[in-house]
Amino acid sequence: MGDKATMISHRKELVIETPARRAFVNITPDVEEAIRASGVHEGLCLVNAMHITASVFINDDEPGLHQDYEEWLEGLAPHEPISRYRHNRTGEDNGDAHLKRQIMGREVVVAITEGRLDFGPWEQIFYGEFDGRRKKRVLVKVIGGAGPD
Amino acid sequence: MGDKATMISHRKELVIETPARRAFVNITPDVEEAIRASGVHEGLCLVNAMHITASVFINDDEPGLHQDYEEWLEGLAPHEPISRYRHNRTGEDNGDAHLKRQIMGREVVVAITEGRLDFGPWEQIFYGEFDGRRKKRVLVKVIGGAGPD
Amino acid sequence: MGDKATMISHRKELVIETPARRAFVNITPDVEEAIRASGVHEGLCLVNAMHITASVFINDDEPGLHQDYEEWLEGLAPHEPISRYRHNRTGEDNGDAHLKRQIMGREVVVAITEGRLDFGPWEQIFYGEFDGRRKKRVLVKVIGGAGPD
Repeated sequence: MGDKATMISHRKELVIETPARRAFVNITPDVEEAIRASGVHEGLCLVNAMHITASVFINDDEPGLHQDYEEWLEGLAPHEPISRYRHNRTGEDNGDAHLKRQIMGREVVVAITEGRLDFGPWEQIFYGEFDGRRKKRVLVKVIGGAGPD
Repeated sequence: MGDKATMISHRKELVIETPARRAFVNITPDVEEAIRASGVHEGLCLVNAMHITASVFINDDEPGLHQDYEEWLEGLAPHEPISRYRHNRTGEDNGDAHLKRQIMGREVVVAITEGRLDFGPWEQIFYGEFDGRRKKRVLVKVIGGAGPD
Repeated sequence: MGDKATMISHRKELVIETPARRAFVNITPDVEEAIRASGVHEGLCLVNAMHITASVFINDDEPGLHQDYEEWLEGLAPHEPISRYRHNRTGEDNGDAHLKRQIMGREVVVAITEGRLDFGPWEQIFYGEFDGRRKKRVLVKVIGGAGPD
């Protein structure tokens, strides 16, 4: 039988503006801070992009890998020609970004154990921007049980 | 420290039958209704396809984009020739649908804040059907804390 | 209004070592066992790879389909030439595995209803290994409400 606790919840928004159209930003410290502030001892933490041309995903903090992702995603869903995407007939030029975000995912759900991110050795949380150069938001929502007093 | 509450849960099934093999259906109003019915004030809502040739995902409610998704997925995992997929040797013709669903995802987890979907400006929840023309089910599971009386 | 309950949580780690570089392993029985052990009657269960070259996903337990996935992923992100990926300049040879894992996903979140996995007819949980031949871990985290006494 699991541990009993009173349920608590906490919400935090991160604001991210990348100077380039595409970028990967390590947001692990911000998520850790939200978990600390929540007081949740055992629970779950949802981290999701609030915009539909961006991703939140977990992988390695290694610049070569991020360049591999960038080139691979550009191969699977090229930015140009802009006319390639019907979505861009609405006046947008970010059709590719809506596709890239589906590969990398909108959100991650992470376990909280003993008040901390319950992570494997190399797991880090990234914001993946595919249509940047403007303010975007990431939502962190924590729910779970409070720890022993 | 987060807000304290008693934990509650709620379950709802949606039934969807699309006339075409492939389709995208906006199910946001159904999820909102399930959250209202749950009485959850702060929590998480899981929305998942109960079938393995369908997706639930979050993106834009824009018909041109949906056509882009359709063509892109057909390029990444073509329906024909049927013989392309070993899975179809079982007598099925939906091998492609099992692949397309992995790109678009099985589920979304969304935050509930003050009794409502905690969404960015353009986020909408879609059911993605890749092997339709029969009844399929979507599960909505809500857990979290009840609001103040 | 949903059912009221006291919140409980439970954690379990699975250890998996596949003899081949790539493999799919059905872990549904292990997750069911963790849910039973948790005592959670209504809630959510997170199952995630703790390593960034592996996936947890839900699909069909059909060997032909798994071979389709293997070939499809190899086409989208080939293992060779090793020099194809900048990540491999760090001395690794698993650049492809970091890409394949993004297609198949890191985690699933599943509903628990009346103490059991709330699944459609064919849903099964798989561990997807893309860089095996060594011990890897999967995390199962259960949170929710205890059932009636």
